[in-house]
Amino acid sequence: MSSYFITGANRGLGLALTSHLAQLPASQVSTIFAGTRAPSASGDLQKLIDSSGGRVVHTSVAITDRASIDKAVLEVDARLEGRGLDVLINNAGAMHWVPEGGIAKMDNLREAFEINVQAVQNTTAAFIPLLRKGSLKKVVNISTTLGSIAQSHKYMWGSAPAYKITKAALNMLTVQYALEYEKEGFIIFAVSPGWLKTDLGSQSADLNVEVGARAVVDIILNSTSKDVGAFRNILVPGWEKTDGPNQYDGVNPPW
Amino acid sequence: MSSYFITGANRGLGLALTSHLAQLPASQVSTIFAGTRAPSASGDLQKLIDSSGGRVVHTSVAITDRASIDKAVLEVDARLEGRGLDVLINNAGAMHWVPEGGIAKMDNLREAFEINVQAVQNTTAAFIPLLRKGSLKKVVNISTTLGSIAQSHKYMWGSAPAYKITKAALNMLTVQYALEYEKEGFIIFAVSPGWLKTDLGSQSADLNVEVGARAVVDIILNSTSKDVGAFRNILVPGWEKTDGPNQYDGVNPPW
Ligand SMILES: NC(=O)c1ccc[n+]([C@@H]2O[C@H](COP(=O)([O-])OP(=O)(O)OC[C@H]3O[C@@H](n4cnc5c(N)ncnc54)[C@H](OP(=O)(O)O)[C@@H]3O)[C@@H](O)[C@H]2O)c1
Ligand SMILES: NC(=O)c1ccc[n+]([C@@H]2O[C@H](COP(=O)([O-])OP(=O)(O)OC[C@H]3O[C@@H](n4cnc5c(N)ncnc54)[C@H](OP(=O)(O)O)[C@@H]3O)[C@@H](O)[C@H]2O)c1
Repeated sequence: MSSYFITGANRGLGLALTSHLAQLPASQVSTIFAGTRAPSASGDLQKLIDSSGGRVVHTSVAITDRASIDKAVLEVDARLEGRGLDVLINNAGAMHWVPEGGIAKMDNLREAFEINVQAVQNTTAAFIPLLRKGSLKKVVNISTTLGSIAQSHKYMWGSAPAYKITKAALNMLTVQYALEYEKEGFIIFAVSPGWLKTDLGSQSADLNVEVGARAVVDIILNSTSKDVGAFRNILVPGWEKTDGPNQYDGVNPPW
Repeated sequence: MSSYFITGANRGLGLALTSHLAQLPASQVSTIFAGTRAPSASGDLQKLIDSSGGRVVHTSVAITDRASIDKAVLEVDARLEGRGLDVLINNAGAMHWVPEGGIAKMDNLREAFEINVQAVQNTTAAFIPLLRKGSLKKVVNISTTLGSIAQSHKYMWGSAPAYKITKAALNMLTVQYALEYEKEGFIIFAVSPGWLKTDLGSQSADLNVEVGARAVVDIILNSTSKDVGAFRNILVPGWEKTDGPNQYDGVNPPW
């Protein structure tokens, strides 16, 4: 009987996570708040809501604006009737490509920071009181192996420096939250969901978004205090037989 | 006969780096451009300039403002008469403490990002053409072990999350520049200068700022292509006999 709040739920991984959670028994997942910055749900999300028997609830929230999040927190609180929120998934994010001319011409770092880091700070800070009242106290930040500083060499082909820089910052933000709230029983960690066929990941990606969503949900459901401050990598059985550049072996990537 | 540009040179580590470089023979260090955001040099910097025989040159530069940096680049270019700049040291930085209430109350992340990350992007991008004409092509970003995600546990006592998050981002920015400009012969890396007695480091710090400055200059002078994209730690002979929490053993910290 756990409740979830997911940002960026109108498409891509956020939508797939919402869909996957909604397929779990109601005894396991009671309510999924699907946050979108648009005032109304996308067609795909609306379909999911309509077929969910009231378990998927649309919440309009501009995560770059703290006042909008505070409003969403009040809505969620009212809906949960004081039971608290169990899991927050900070999923919304954006990948800014390097402009022609390489990193020295990068002019989108501040913009990437606002959505990939500052918005996660805004959202997490605003939901902490509701999460404190919840029984799982989990915060899951969707990161990426492209944010692994140690693996930079491997990912030089992905010319998205603002994305890499802000996801490395997100990783440190995650660990700072994790270590500070550990003493209150929170389990806060980052997950790399794999390279997924979404608007962000493109159709050249390794995995269907449903595969990534399922693997991320597995990690969330099975996460314990040993995952506090971890950088989790998905496990996709059979990954070694595919020919993508990535290893979905469940082994935590280096920072 | 190398030329240096240092940001934040009016006090602290930047001033000490300027001073240490000015003590090296003119055959080794020809010109040190001491960048400060203030329109004029601080008293200490002015003394250094006055006793430097023209080798220390004050440059007023607001590194959070790209137009101001472009102006500084023109000044440096004119002074160097087309020879190019050899070494850029991105030293200016600020440590924002967590407000009462911990990381969830953190309201200075954006501000920390502007000075510790975006300003380094602004400065590096603007100086790349001049550095390309120089003979050493070194860019040294002053980072900190507090920005090591892997060492977060060790540094939880330092409640400066915005500083840690933005320095982790700076580390990734450094590596992205390093790997992109490596092919043109650039040597770009990050250095942790040790915990130093400055306004930022406080008087409880382990080391006098001169000790840190000397160790950083040693690293810069001896850096080669093996340091591309590295996170260097200072080596202070005898460090193991002191009782500070840090190891100044010259071993690169983990990301
Ligand atoms: N796809 C991959 O291969 C991959 C790999 C590693 C990590 N990830 C991470 O997975 C997460 C989801 O990515 P995705 O592939 O699902 O991307 P996507 O299909 O492009 O969807 C991005 C989501 O984030 C929301 N979003 C973007 N900018 C926003 C803003 N400024 N304010 C509020 N919401 C915003 C979008 O909302 P709108 O529809 O309103 O724009 C959308 O819901 C991201 O954090 C991404 O970094 C993805
Ligand atoms: N001290 C330590 O223990 C320690 C340890 C690890 C790393 N570091 C790093 O070493 C570098 C220098 O630190 P420090 O100890 O010398 O600090 P400091 O004594 O506080 O001096 C900071 C310098 O940065 C400049 N600065 C700050 N904010 C600026 C802004 N918005 N725009 C332009 N310049 C700005 C300051 O200029 P104004 O005088 O005009 O304010 C000053 O020159 C920093 O990057 C710091 O992170 C220091």
